[in-house]
Amino acid sequence: MSSHSHLQLQVQPLTEIKHLKIHGRTTGALNPLTLFWTGSAIEVNLQASELWLEVESDYDHHESWISVLINSVPVSRQMVNAGRHWICVFRGMNPEQVKNIRIVKEVQAMSGDPGSYLQFHAVRTDGSFLPVEAKPYRLEFIGDSITSGEGVIGAKMEEDWIPAWFSGVHNYTAITAEAVQAEFRVISQSGWGVLSSWDNNPKGNIPDIYEKVCGLLTGPRNEALGAHAMNDFTAWQPDVVVVNLGTNDDGAFNSPEWLDEDTGRIYKQRLNEDGSYHEEDLAAFETAVTRFLAKLRSYNPGAHLLWVYGMLGLSLMPAIYRAVDEYMKSTGDKNVSVFQLPNVTNETMGARTHPGLPAHEQTARELSGYIRGLLSGS
Amino acid sequence: MSSHSHLQLQVQPLTEIKHLKIHGRTTGALNPLTLFWTGSAIEVNLQASELWLEVESDYDHHESWISVLINSVPVSRQMVNAGRHWICVFRGMNPEQVKNIRIVKEVQAMSGDPGSYLQFHAVRTDGSFLPVEAKPYRLEFIGDSITSGEGVIGAKMEEDWIPAWFSGVHNYTAITAEAVQAEFRVISQSGWGVLSSWDNNPKGNIPDIYEKVCGLLTGPRNEALGAHAMNDFTAWQPDVVVVNLGTNDDGAFNSPEWLDEDTGRIYKQRLNEDGSYHEEDLAAFETAVTRFLAKLRSYNPGAHLLWVYGMLGLSLMPAIYRAVDEYMKSTGDKNVSVFQLPNVTNETMGARTHPGLPAHEQTARELSGYIRGLLSGS
Amino acid sequence: MSSHSHLQLQVQPLTEIKHLKIHGRTTGALNPLTLFWTGSAIEVNLQASELWLEVESDYDHHESWISVLINSVPVSRQMVNAGRHWICVFRGMNPEQVKNIRIVKEVQAMSGDPGSYLQFHAVRTDGSFLPVEAKPYRLEFIGDSITSGEGVIGAKMEEDWIPAWFSGVHNYTAITAEAVQAEFRVISQSGWGVLSSWDNNPKGNIPDIYEKVCGLLTGPRNEALGAHAMNDFTAWQPDVVVVNLGTNDDGAFNSPEWLDEDTGRIYKQRLNEDGSYHEEDLAAFETAVTRFLAKLRSYNPGAHLLWVYGMLGLSLMPAIYRAVDEYMKSTGDKNVSVFQLPNVTNETMGARTHPGLPAHEQTARELSGYIRGLLSGS
Amino acid sequence: MSSHSHLQLQVQPLTEIKHLKIHGRTTGALNPLTLFWTGSAIEVNLQASELWLEVESDYDHHESWISVLINSVPVSRQMVNAGRHWICVFRGMNPEQVKNIRIVKEVQAMSGDPGSYLQFHAVRTDGSFLPVEAKPYRLEFIGDSITSGEGVIGAKMEEDWIPAWFSGVHNYTAITAEAVQAEFRVISQSGWGVLSSWDNNPKGNIPDIYEKVCGLLTGPRNEALGAHAMNDFTAWQPDVVVVNLGTNDDGAFNSPEWLDEDTGRIYKQRLNEDGSYHEEDLAAFETAVTRFLAKLRSYNPGAHLLWVYGMLGLSLMPAIYRAVDEYMKSTGDKNVSVFQLPNVTNETMGARTHPGLPAHEQTARELSGYIRGLLSGS
Repeated sequence: MSSHSHLQLQVQPLTEIKHLKIHGRTTGALNPLTLFWTGSAIEVNLQASELWLEVESDYDHHESWISVLINSVPVSRQMVNAGRHWICVFRGMNPEQVKNIRIVKEVQAMSGDPGSYLQFHAVRTDGSFLPVEAKPYRLEFIGDSITSGEGVIGAKMEEDWIPAWFSGVHNYTAITAEAVQAEFRVISQSGWGVLSSWDNNPKGNIPDIYEKVCGLLTGPRNEALGAHAMNDFTAWQPDVVVVNLGTNDDGAFNSPEWLDEDTGRIYKQRLNEDGSYHEEDLAAFETAVTRFLAKLRSYNPGAHLLWVYGMLGLSLMPAIYRAVDEYMKSTGDKNVSVFQLPNVTNETMGARTHPGLPAHEQTARELSGYIRGLLSGS
Repeated sequence: MSSHSHLQLQVQPLTEIKHLKIHGRTTGALNPLTLFWTGSAIEVNLQASELWLEVESDYDHHESWISVLINSVPVSRQMVNAGRHWICVFRGMNPEQVKNIRIVKEVQAMSGDPGSYLQFHAVRTDGSFLPVEAKPYRLEFIGDSITSGEGVIGAKMEEDWIPAWFSGVHNYTAITAEAVQAEFRVISQSGWGVLSSWDNNPKGNIPDIYEKVCGLLTGPRNEALGAHAMNDFTAWQPDVVVVNLGTNDDGAFNSPEWLDEDTGRIYKQRLNEDGSYHEEDLAAFETAVTRFLAKLRSYNPGAHLLWVYGMLGLSLMPAIYRAVDEYMKSTGDKNVSVFQLPNVTNETMGARTHPGLPAHEQTARELSGYIRGLLSGS
Repeated sequence: MSSHSHLQLQVQPLTEIKHLKIHGRTTGALNPLTLFWTGSAIEVNLQASELWLEVESDYDHHESWISVLINSVPVSRQMVNAGRHWICVFRGMNPEQVKNIRIVKEVQAMSGDPGSYLQFHAVRTDGSFLPVEAKPYRLEFIGDSITSGEGVIGAKMEEDWIPAWFSGVHNYTAITAEAVQAEFRVISQSGWGVLSSWDNNPKGNIPDIYEKVCGLLTGPRNEALGAHAMNDFTAWQPDVVVVNLGTNDDGAFNSPEWLDEDTGRIYKQRLNEDGSYHEEDLAAFETAVTRFLAKLRSYNPGAHLLWVYGMLGLSLMPAIYRAVDEYMKSTGDKNVSVFQLPNVTNETMGARTHPGLPAHEQTARELSGYIRGLLSGS
Repeated sequence: MSSHSHLQLQVQPLTEIKHLKIHGRTTGALNPLTLFWTGSAIEVNLQASELWLEVESDYDHHESWISVLINSVPVSRQMVNAGRHWICVFRGMNPEQVKNIRIVKEVQAMSGDPGSYLQFHAVRTDGSFLPVEAKPYRLEFIGDSITSGEGVIGAKMEEDWIPAWFSGVHNYTAITAEAVQAEFRVISQSGWGVLSSWDNNPKGNIPDIYEKVCGLLTGPRNEALGAHAMNDFTAWQPDVVVVNLGTNDDGAFNSPEWLDEDTGRIYKQRLNEDGSYHEEDLAAFETAVTRFLAKLRSYNPGAHLLWVYGMLGLSLMPAIYRAVDEYMKSTGDKNVSVFQLPNVTNETMGARTHPGLPAHEQTARELSGYIRGLLSGS
């Protein structure tokens, strides 16, 4: 092993990298940098022959995964072991050539795993960093397992709920952003909704945690890492906020009640005997949509708010249209719209009965067409 | 990190695994197992929640890469650092469910790197191994950079010659074998031909090293590992031997002469002034083809010998047909044929001006159709 | 020409054909049969070597076109000259073999051409007719130029408004019906809407003419042919009524006013200064949708009413959802839904800036998936 | 019918059309013009609102079919009845706009039908003709049923041998020519080969009739029309002659002997007992290939001669390569090559177990890539 010494490689903490682009919400801390959400990444333009990254990670249940993109093409994808390690990103390349490198978190923030985190400490390279050009647009995606890319990886027969089947790269969010030349951020959680999670747990809602850096994480370590700090919305304002929620809210109507053991209160979105949604509970869902739009507007004053829905069924679409309508009427806010996504089919299905890569690609094709229209003002 | 102890995981050297399937030529040694050629792999059916693999690797220049397939779907792909490490293949899965696992060498044997090797020592798991069903057919692929999957990974703009751009999984060999339900082995080397390498080096020919386990490797360590031992052809006889050579032999006609510094002899495949192949040199190429067929027949008495050509140009195809004809006439061997592969286009090009994944997929579609005809005896 | 005499061919008026299936709304008259709407057709299962059809047609401006499908595959497509002619449908075929034959009107009913009509009088054949099996489902499509297949045929550069560019065969209606195994009927007119036509003409609305056999035709001849008779809804009840209207209603907001010369009254759907829809006029559109749903329900008591929209823009979708919601609330009718169709792109565009065949195919793929769900009751 | 009088339409015999482009081999006569081969056509650039064509046709067994292309897009396709008729090509178009019109023979010359012919006499239009720009290249295709487009139209289940299933437009010849910007001619006949037809009839060979305008037609009428006159090769020299023959020559090895009733001589291409080709008979095939190349060269001194093969099996490819090699060696002619076409699959199959449209499209994609290389001199 002495033959490939690293004599010329210099370790640089992230704080010293001149042109470091960070994707995804963070606390702003770089020593180390904690990546919370799927699709979060560091990006550099690097003139070097070799690059290593010092990664730290741990978990109680769900390990983290990362992908490396070189010049926008995925080259490696790997599980991150617990502990602090150096990972070789590339080596043996032409030292004169500048390459664009992205190292991307492939897995969602894990609300169910207080011990789970992923951090980048430093790089080791023989080269120098150049500016990363900003993209003309910014998108924020908010969603559930679909938006977390659950099931994009893996055979159709897979049923285990494990991080390996998630991807932030082979995901309609990333593909849509690429198609419209946008940076993007993702706020997403499997099983969660706008009012409750699929099992009627009222805490499984994205709106309540939206303004925190990563408010759904639990445990003292994540708190210490700043997950519960207020997000700095002034630092990054999106052009479009895409909300892909509702699929688990529909699930709540079709799932058993949820008992809050602290209060003894029972939560259940009810169906009528004929299988239709119970009016009151549907109204509660609509109110949650309307309120979330108001919250999104308060933090994103200039963004188009775009509710999308339909990759795993359309049943709540009328309620979503009503709620958006109600929001628009009551506020006069016209910078809001709804867009139906194409339903998954047998041919486009992935693992765990979730949309596969072809479904994400089809969604990205249709959604990017719609967003392009919004961005061009047409 | 104490939270994910490995108390129930048992270390087993490969020698103790009951149902271990090995793909690719090896020496037969399992303690450790050395994988030489691209596409070489271990395969198990494992009823377990977790699997780790102890990997050892080193290199002077060109590191190794591996991919993990779970139930036939690629899940991870990573560079293998120098040294001896435990790599987690999967974790957190249903311990009752049997999964098919393949861990595949993504990079060709490296004739230019005497320090390069990849070994698997042991596994660590909480589960038990079940038999791996044999596939009905066996294919052997012999080729150059195309067959090594060079350029399948990476952006079109990439020009560095590095292992990252190679793949044994996203490769026409693997896709063809899957399509016809065959196990497969690959013998391949970038730049090499049937007579010489692209730069007229007469040592860069596959036929001379064919009968050795991995005869193109150099250095004392590879020799000690058994790379130069005779391959045990009785242990694995293919139904079809696919030879995809000729592209670099054409390159030799268009490249400068090669000086053998030991002997002072100069080697050069010549062109006539009008750009056509020099008759004598073309005859030398044809003789090399004819001889290689005879050698292949001697080691593979029952196999159909199939010469394929055309993914990067067709110019030597008439010579290949002549040489195959000559071989058939002189030997009476009728179990031989030639098949033209589809040329790469701008749309199907990959990195380093080599066929990209779409080109490999198109080739696999057409080639598997042809091979299916051979296997069904039609 | 004496060499191909028709000695064995027998002329049979349509009234005498034992197993004649008629597609599309008609008056019930067979002597002759008048086809009004696009996609209207006769269908037979015929054991014969040869078939001719006696066709009569005329027009002031817009000639008719027909397509012939043999065993469900389009084989010929031709303009129908004015006058009464025999057209050879097929000849020289195996007289023992039964073939399924459909002869389809390719062009919409022409509201602007009082002289336009298409009639079938008789057949001439050497064979015999067998029963045509009924398909398990029935769909009715109601729409505008999109549903008339305008622009499916012809180069992108074409701008003439002529029948040649229309098709009832290469049309999302036919492709969707085929995909879900349904018979189908089409009620459609280029430029028309649910409230008015694109140019604000209040007479250009489909709802007012819906209950007539073909109420939008004009002129004494069409009246004499029964176009203005009440349609016999008891004879054919659809499982799903698909309404694809709204595109021209949006056009009316963006087009000059329309002057009713008889009354002097001016009609105009107004935009606000900021480009948004004027509230009153939008309400008028919504009322038109709601009323049309009520009318559709009165004539189709058991059908699912499905409003689809989006192939040429989405801007009225919120109003459509509101109107459907209002209809459902005010009536308690739950057998209604809305489905967004995929927008046309540069790649899928046809002639006259209308959806091309790829757009119709994509729409059919997504719409048939949705309708399959309705029909299976899921 | 009085409403659409043709007062302004002027009849012009073809002889008086200023800018008339004729595709396909003809005798040069225009009064009338006889179209012999499939893909033969007239092409005009016409500034007019309306165009009619006076067509004359007859047949004993196999009627003719034509397609109309407006601005390169197929718009209509119809059987041509026996007799002399006016067919409306288009009407109602913008009289100021120039449109490119092609009227194409869809069916091959019919060697088995002495009564079959197709003629164009005159046009009737209100407009004027403009020059048709020449395309930069010229291709000649020589072949059998594949090249006649047999089976491109119709359901897979069709088995009748009738003109309806043929197409000169939806055909690899036309698609390839379009892709490389070439005019093209087709010389083809179902069942024929280079040595004999599929049933061992030695008269069913294309080479013997190649130099005549349409030498395979029979009967006094076709002779009177000039079908047996020498073709004027000076008038049209191709850049590439594509020969797609051999499929029926292989068929002859697998078909019963053919008895020449005039001479009593029996013809049969024999197989050996092991199913391989009989050496003498294979040599006869190869000689036929070699001789045909020499004949093609004598009439097309500057053309690249390209033998293609493989859409319905590859078994004669080694013989073709040998024969081409022999021709090149014995003549020194280097402007010759061989190209394998992609085999048809279940997915790309058309009617009558012949290649369908997807197979023709795939062939055109690969063949046009190869021909583009030839034309660019690379």
